[in-house]
Amino acid sequence: VSVVRFDKATFRWHGVDERAYKEGEGDFRDVVRLRLGSASELGSAFELRYFELEPGGYSSLEKHRHVHFVVALRGRGKAVVGDRVVELEPFDALYVSPLAPHRFVNEAHEPFGFLCPVDASRDRPQPLSDSEREALKANPATAPYVL
Amino acid sequence: VSVVRFDKATFRWHGVDERAYKEGEGDFRDVVRLRLGSASELGSAFELRYFELEPGGYSSLEKHRHVHFVVALRGRGKAVVGDRVVELEPFDALYVSPLAPHRFVNEAHEPFGFLCPVDASRDRPQPLSDSEREALKANPATAPYVL
Repeated sequence: VSVVRFDKATFRWHGVDERAYKEGEGDFRDVVRLRLGSASELGSAFELRYFELEPGGYSSLEKHRHVHFVVALRGRGKAVVGDRVVELEPFDALYVSPLAPHRFVNEAHEPFGFLCPVDASRDRPQPLSDSEREALKANPATAPYVL
Repeated sequence: VSVVRFDKATFRWHGVDERAYKEGEGDFRDVVRLRLGSASELGSAFELRYFELEPGGYSSLEKHRHVHFVVALRGRGKAVVGDRVVELEPFDALYVSPLAPHRFVNEAHEPFGFLCPVDASRDRPQPLSDSEREALKANPATAPYVL
């Protein structure tokens, strides 16, 4: 039996280390990534991660063939997905379809955290094409989040 | 974009119907099963379900080769896993290894709910063997939960 205990005071799990969100520099800020269960540890086709954006934080603007289906756990945040911006609060779930450009953003004053189960076998995130970036910049809803 | 909105008042998600936990009768009671995202809808190697045990409820005592990695979301409950009984509260995570006999139990006065991401391709649950049941009955920790 393996229980991964949650600690309410810190909003973290015992024995789960914070990992770099991505290697090196990028178009992201103040993102925490925790791997609650890796596919190799679990022996599963999925893994389960927890991401947290601190106030003012945002994830990379990216796309990939694998889908996301995240469940908000803490705080309030926004997700830019395709040509829309949606607000998320606990325990809203959000589907991100294959190759949809997306970014998570925290404009609130509390951390925004969400669970993110994902296929173990998946493609690497890619930056947007120039035309995809231009389309998001031309859309008043998404323009503020292109950065 | 597809957002599955959570409703705090009912602790349910809009547009997600309750499904029969299992077909027919069985050794379970007062279990709610919601499929938040199916693998065919998502196009993923996993699906994401939410299970809820009402006070006094319990899931089948069963085993299977596919693993569980559940995250408690609501209330407090117990999980019988192998020869141990562990208590879970939000947002504790529990790993159930291949073929470990397991059952979830709610002995509290509030609903006990947990997220359960699972491999889309998986084997069917099996009942325990007679010797497995006898071992659980002979163990004072697990005996009350063999039923």
